[in-house]
Amino acid sequence: MMDYQLTVPAILRRAETLYSKKEIVSCLPDKNIYRYTYGNFVVRVKKLGAALRKQGVREGDRVATLCWNHHQHLETYFAIPCIGAIIHPLNVRFSAEDLGYIIDEAEDKCLIVDQVLLPLFEKFKSFISISSVIVISQSSQPVPEGYLDYETLLQNGDADQFKSFDGDENTAAFMCYTSGTTGKPKGILYSHRSILLHTLSSLLASTDIGITEHDSVLSIVPMFHAGAWGLPYNCTLVGAKQVYPGPNLDTENLLRLLEAEQVTVTGAVPTVIQGILHKLDEHPGKYKLALRTIMIGGSAMPRFLVKSFNERYGVRVLHTWGMTETSPLGVTSTIHSELKKASKEEQYDHARKQGQPIPLVEIRGRNESGLIPWDGITMGELEVRGPFVAASYYKDTTANTKFTSDGWLKTGDIATIDENGFIEIRDRSKDMIKSGGEWISSVALENALMSHPAVLEAAVVGVPDARWMERPHAYLVLKEGKKVSTQELKNHLQEMFPRFWIPEGYSIIDAIPKTSVGKFLKSALREKYNREYPAINR
Amino acid sequence: MMDYQLTVPAILRRAETLYSKKEIVSCLPDKNIYRYTYGNFVVRVKKLGAALRKQGVREGDRVATLCWNHHQHLETYFAIPCIGAIIHPLNVRFSAEDLGYIIDEAEDKCLIVDQVLLPLFEKFKSFISISSVIVISQSSQPVPEGYLDYETLLQNGDADQFKSFDGDENTAAFMCYTSGTTGKPKGILYSHRSILLHTLSSLLASTDIGITEHDSVLSIVPMFHAGAWGLPYNCTLVGAKQVYPGPNLDTENLLRLLEAEQVTVTGAVPTVIQGILHKLDEHPGKYKLALRTIMIGGSAMPRFLVKSFNERYGVRVLHTWGMTETSPLGVTSTIHSELKKASKEEQYDHARKQGQPIPLVEIRGRNESGLIPWDGITMGELEVRGPFVAASYYKDTTANTKFTSDGWLKTGDIATIDENGFIEIRDRSKDMIKSGGEWISSVALENALMSHPAVLEAAVVGVPDARWMERPHAYLVLKEGKKVSTQELKNHLQEMFPRFWIPEGYSIIDAIPKTSVGKFLKSALREKYNREYPAINR
Repeated sequence: MMDYQLTVPAILRRAETLYSKKEIVSCLPDKNIYRYTYGNFVVRVKKLGAALRKQGVREGDRVATLCWNHHQHLETYFAIPCIGAIIHPLNVRFSAEDLGYIIDEAEDKCLIVDQVLLPLFEKFKSFISISSVIVISQSSQPVPEGYLDYETLLQNGDADQFKSFDGDENTAAFMCYTSGTTGKPKGILYSHRSILLHTLSSLLASTDIGITEHDSVLSIVPMFHAGAWGLPYNCTLVGAKQVYPGPNLDTENLLRLLEAEQVTVTGAVPTVIQGILHKLDEHPGKYKLALRTIMIGGSAMPRFLVKSFNERYGVRVLHTWGMTETSPLGVTSTIHSELKKASKEEQYDHARKQGQPIPLVEIRGRNESGLIPWDGITMGELEVRGPFVAASYYKDTTANTKFTSDGWLKTGDIATIDENGFIEIRDRSKDMIKSGGEWISSVALENALMSHPAVLEAAVVGVPDARWMERPHAYLVLKEGKKVSTQELKNHLQEMFPRFWIPEGYSIIDAIPKTSVGKFLKSALREKYNREYPAINR
Repeated sequence: MMDYQLTVPAILRRAETLYSKKEIVSCLPDKNIYRYTYGNFVVRVKKLGAALRKQGVREGDRVATLCWNHHQHLETYFAIPCIGAIIHPLNVRFSAEDLGYIIDEAEDKCLIVDQVLLPLFEKFKSFISISSVIVISQSSQPVPEGYLDYETLLQNGDADQFKSFDGDENTAAFMCYTSGTTGKPKGILYSHRSILLHTLSSLLASTDIGITEHDSVLSIVPMFHAGAWGLPYNCTLVGAKQVYPGPNLDTENLLRLLEAEQVTVTGAVPTVIQGILHKLDEHPGKYKLALRTIMIGGSAMPRFLVKSFNERYGVRVLHTWGMTETSPLGVTSTIHSELKKASKEEQYDHARKQGQPIPLVEIRGRNESGLIPWDGITMGELEVRGPFVAASYYKDTTANTKFTSDGWLKTGDIATIDENGFIEIRDRSKDMIKSGGEWISSVALENALMSHPAVLEAAVVGVPDARWMERPHAYLVLKEGKKVSTQELKNHLQEMFPRFWIPEGYSIIDAIPKTSVGKFLKSALREKYNREYPAINR
């Protein structure tokens, strides 16, 4: 067989030869729309690649980006790996201190930054030494002095001078730092091979994402967060229309894009999707959508929202699970053929689960007694392996505790696995509540609380208890104008859970603190509890 | 990233863990149905692997099979590569002489043969030296003396003794000989990696095959011919129900299986599919089918048959193109989104084409002036490359003329490529007719002749001509009871082609000679012509 390396340039060549007339669309900071073709995109990628070489970027160098989702960011996704360098998207929601730390550790040689994000950059600029900073303006405003202008750089780039990376597929192409809620962020290197294999596996018909050239895909999930779940590379390989929202992530703008660009597939965290559902419900018939599938990741979507979206708008809400360490897609909530003839309600019960591993991903679970049975009941820490799963962290020798002795990644997520290999994430291992020797899933309690008509958001944390070691405590945000009593909440939960699961304490708060990627920041709630109830129950 | 090798055992592990309850169905020689689960299948694969090791089969050894499509053949597809050996399916339609030659060249160590194929085996048995012959009985008849019984072997195999291959993904796993119409057959080795990548690429939603766990797949295309186009590995990776017809390939039996097993996807050469269409038309409403897609390969299906199947039975006829050297899938006739709003007729015009390369396959065309433009008009020899395209032939040093100096495979097929990368095969290069310096496509003439109501089959060959060097000559098989004049045929063709394309000569014959894989054997027709018209026109 031919020695054909699995590299990002192979994706670019395919896009260039087969899809030159297809469209890529960006929503600019001023909400105007910019659109161009794959054909023009490829020419600009080559120009950027050639220009970066001229700037001194060599194979193996890291080039950081600090950008929202837009076509220029997509250009960097290709130009940087296609000259053998490593693209390193920075999470704009990290603290300035963390960003400085990351750039320093990664030894980024060059930074490409959105003009609208310069204020963030100014905050950590003094902590870092970086040779060149390139600014993407996206407006008529000139780029401030001292910075290179992205568009000028491209104009001076010569596409004919572009020399495509032609090396080993195991060469690093992409760098991502995880948004750990504790400790310093940790870096992961994706190789050309891992990107290609992740792309192929994600695009299989059997994952139920199954993007094709007929789709129009809006990547709401940020390109600075786990590579926008692979959507940019996926879309480019199969020539789907690509739509990027820029910095305008408000519900109204997202709905405008969904409608105007006749988006068929999108991906986002549950809170964003919940916002879209509320807006659709508020204005029945206003938006003419073509949506077929919403990929959900980050955390689970409550069952009633999955159902609402499907029954009111004919949209499939597809749970996925993954992490930066898994490139990131690991499992998707496909519907098993056994359920084809089941009732809709049974199918929704099933759709709550995170799902089945995509091809080339292998899973298992482990608790104190060893590997757990695949019975859908026994909980254990999920372990995974596969060709697009990280085997180590960048420059990190202390994180080896994240891998088993036989080379599987310990995910830190507590899950059950059923007989067909469908996993259900019950909790982050550190958020699991252990009360009187028994495990209580905070996520299950939260979902149940959020199904109460008065509750908008709920987070449940384990708090110290003299008798049971730990007990669940619920923090609630109520819907506008709604009230609810503690007894009412307890009654609501008692229908669904064993008695020892029911929290004694409930606190109403204004907002639940969240991480940079929109997940509940439970460590902050535990600290809050310990501050406010220093001695109670201990 | 983890060092995870792309091997056949990875497919088996997935089937074992996720799809143990799914079904595999064989139609036995006596037309009874045998069915069992993936769970049992995996246990038997392990037993077979362990038993073959006991028989002395070592890593790298070739194990030949001479079998129809059935579950035991599927077991060998996995057991042999999963112990690091190489499965070598023999084409039962090759001559005994060729089979002897192939086994000798491949140095097959062991042969697994269907009892119903023993008469064929007896014909070349004396030419070869092979250490053990294992017979699959599939009936109550005992296996003849001197042979090992497949079922006895399995009963004595110990699944716990099975040790899965754990080596490099570039190790050979599968061997296939091409059914060349000239010269000796040539062997091609597929690696574990090439099989996995071919499987992933074939299963992408964008190929329009898109087999999932919900499908029931009947492999009519033989497992001894280019690995049944990859269907056995494809189905096993995603847990589709698998249906194998055994030796009973008559239309009636195929329709019985399509109906009884609610088959959704099947693959076969056009003649088989034409037979199915005729039978459906003869008995309206008799068969309740669940078919959605028929993969067509080997040669093109006339446009009116594609249309008939779609309009009368709601079945998508999906052209594919490939060759043993391409593992074998290279392109599929997906419908480009530009055509979404086109008329049905325009879509059928498009569906005649072989299609667009599947991901990781790259194409280009070449004629005397160099690489051809992608204009859909200019004809040239198709060249391909990719990670599942052969780079050489087994033990063959003379076949290097099949590869370009920069490492692409010359396919020997003459094609056009349109601006979206859709290829249309116009002819085999050796079947192209060059008349007065201009090329005439025999395939185009054949399809046009077969659209005449009196014509069942048509083959057009180039015959010597004193003035034009070569002229087309048509051989026709008429439908029962039909007649047609030469003038009528000429009038029919004149509507569609330039005048110099229209053949002067037409011969009515009883049957068109075919190759072992059902393609027209044009060399035999050219010889026939030269025998019958030794001096005419020269």
